[in-house]
Amino acid sequence: MSQNDIQEKFLNQLTNYRELSIKKLLEFIPEREPKKFLYDLVSIYPKRAGKGFRPSLCISTCKIFGGKEYEAYNSAVALELFHNAFLVHDDVEDESCDRRGYPTIHEQYGMPVAINVGDAMNVLGIKPLMKNLTILGPKLTWLVFSEVEHMALEAVEGQAMELGWRMDNTCNLTDEDYLKMILKKTCWYTVIHPIRIGAIIGSGGTVDPDRFNRFGYYMGASFQIQDDLLNLIGDKKYGKEICGDILEGKRTLMLIHLLNTCNGKEKERLTRYLAKNRADRTPPEMKWVMKMMDKYECIEYGKKSAKNLAGAALKEFYTVFGDRQDTIDRQFIENMILYMVNRDY
Amino acid sequence: MSQNDIQEKFLNQLTNYRELSIKKLLEFIPEREPKKFLYDLVSIYPKRAGKGFRPSLCISTCKIFGGKEYEAYNSAVALELFHNAFLVHDDVEDESCDRRGYPTIHEQYGMPVAINVGDAMNVLGIKPLMKNLTILGPKLTWLVFSEVEHMALEAVEGQAMELGWRMDNTCNLTDEDYLKMILKKTCWYTVIHPIRIGAIIGSGGTVDPDRFNRFGYYMGASFQIQDDLLNLIGDKKYGKEICGDILEGKRTLMLIHLLNTCNGKEKERLTRYLAKNRADRTPPEMKWVMKMMDKYECIEYGKKSAKNLAGAALKEFYTVFGDRQDTIDRQFIENMILYMVNRDY
Repeated sequence: MSQNDIQEKFLNQLTNYRELSIKKLLEFIPEREPKKFLYDLVSIYPKRAGKGFRPSLCISTCKIFGGKEYEAYNSAVALELFHNAFLVHDDVEDESCDRRGYPTIHEQYGMPVAINVGDAMNVLGIKPLMKNLTILGPKLTWLVFSEVEHMALEAVEGQAMELGWRMDNTCNLTDEDYLKMILKKTCWYTVIHPIRIGAIIGSGGTVDPDRFNRFGYYMGASFQIQDDLLNLIGDKKYGKEICGDILEGKRTLMLIHLLNTCNGKEKERLTRYLAKNRADRTPPEMKWVMKMMDKYECIEYGKKSAKNLAGAALKEFYTVFGDRQDTIDRQFIENMILYMVNRDY
Repeated sequence: MSQNDIQEKFLNQLTNYRELSIKKLLEFIPEREPKKFLYDLVSIYPKRAGKGFRPSLCISTCKIFGGKEYEAYNSAVALELFHNAFLVHDDVEDESCDRRGYPTIHEQYGMPVAINVGDAMNVLGIKPLMKNLTILGPKLTWLVFSEVEHMALEAVEGQAMELGWRMDNTCNLTDEDYLKMILKKTCWYTVIHPIRIGAIIGSGGTVDPDRFNRFGYYMGASFQIQDDLLNLIGDKKYGKEICGDILEGKRTLMLIHLLNTCNGKEKERLTRYLAKNRADRTPPEMKWVMKMMDKYECIEYGKKSAKNLAGAALKEFYTVFGDRQDTIDRQFIENMILYMVNRDY
């Protein structure tokens, strides 16, 4: 099979899992009042169709470990709901304008409504987890529940680290600081827990979920760096305002690399830029940061790091999935590793 | 016993339950990083010492229905955590300046950090509910869990109703609309569910929790109207900026009464005032609204409504708690009804 065929096959399966998860997710949104400022808005982000990585990872891992597809549906829905809730609040916190090609909820309906919609999505994520009881029984339901609790706590801790750096205008960060932050903010809830939950369900709780942590970290980190790269160099397909991260002062691996490699005078200017409020950062200043990133080859540095992490993920994949049958779903996760760093949106 | 003695006895017990709950709550806050912008802030509102109605109602009802006090601790902690999380987000949404006598979290640390702190408090509320498993067993743990899920959903629905009225500048509301909104926004999570959860735990799941809904509604509604009254006429002890509700355009029973009783010209002016952004509402305009409330006896109307609801709660109290032994805890809830409408903070 050619690389193109493999990619096409992967994308078809990703689309299938995503559409299935969104269909199931929409069934959990109550069909009652208040609609205009709550339930009509809860479905906006999910309907905009993200990539569906999280539910797909959960469902495919469940199957790889001997489970039936439907056994993972409720958990997949919960993961996608929590993810979208996180995006709604993250967008408010970052004052982001666009998400998935359209205005963010707070841009359309104001900050108060957006916060409450995010809160509602978090609450709605509990119902599918409770519905696990009839399908998975109490032991597995409870295990999945503990996974989600840990997942949510890691995400708020990662978010607090990142927000703290902006609040303090921290400019002396290392690559290790960055990786520690995205392990918390991204990896646990994007890769590690979806896979852990899928394996717990599929194996009936017999697989040690910790075995996937390293793999999930590598894959999640390469995903996040690629995401930050697309913010700098992506096209319209990407769905967010290009270079929004620079406008927001987000501590990406590329910005940290720039801070650590530019000369003293440039670092001073960059530190002053980062000390400003978002609204006070001008387009010429933003262009200057881009030029500096160009000068110090920050994009190349990010690309290399993402590729290295994807390589490590691939190696780890064979360790933790190597003893599993070579099914469509095992291939799906293998191909996702490559897709995550090659994707253009 | 004189009225003063009864009140003092009640306040002592309320203080005991509150301090106990806060002590237990603080044990659930992780002692690890990130502290500066997360875990140090999570305890700010709880440490400021609210009234502690919710955990107290839960613990006392548990005892009234035959349970041991410690059996209700985890649930009481969860209730207080969710309540404080709700306050943090509510304050951001309303752009409130003060809470319990000090600046709100977002005033001190900015909106992004405050949203994330509220999210963290919601996540932290899950752990005590999970710890119920070892004390209460799976059946009761699960029942309490379902209660909390419903409670959280009602609260976001009530919040959406209230925010929607402000977004649409709705000025044709009835008392019934208001009562429906506070049933959702306040009553379920302030009174109905704390009592239901206490009764479920105390009775080992043998009491039908629906029997408390009417009582909790009356008590919660009288509590909320009193709270809104204190915002208009309270002193410094109250802890929020006096008349902040008028500045925020909050649809209180008193404002709705004013809208429904003032003359056409006044209503037009009031509607224009309410259409403005918070920042554009001037102190003289606010004073004019206060003067109108005086003219149309809105405070008296609110006081009368709160007292009527408290009377209904008292009557209902004898129906649902009447067959219980006359213990300190039964007296505690009985006295709380009167305290809720007589309190000055």
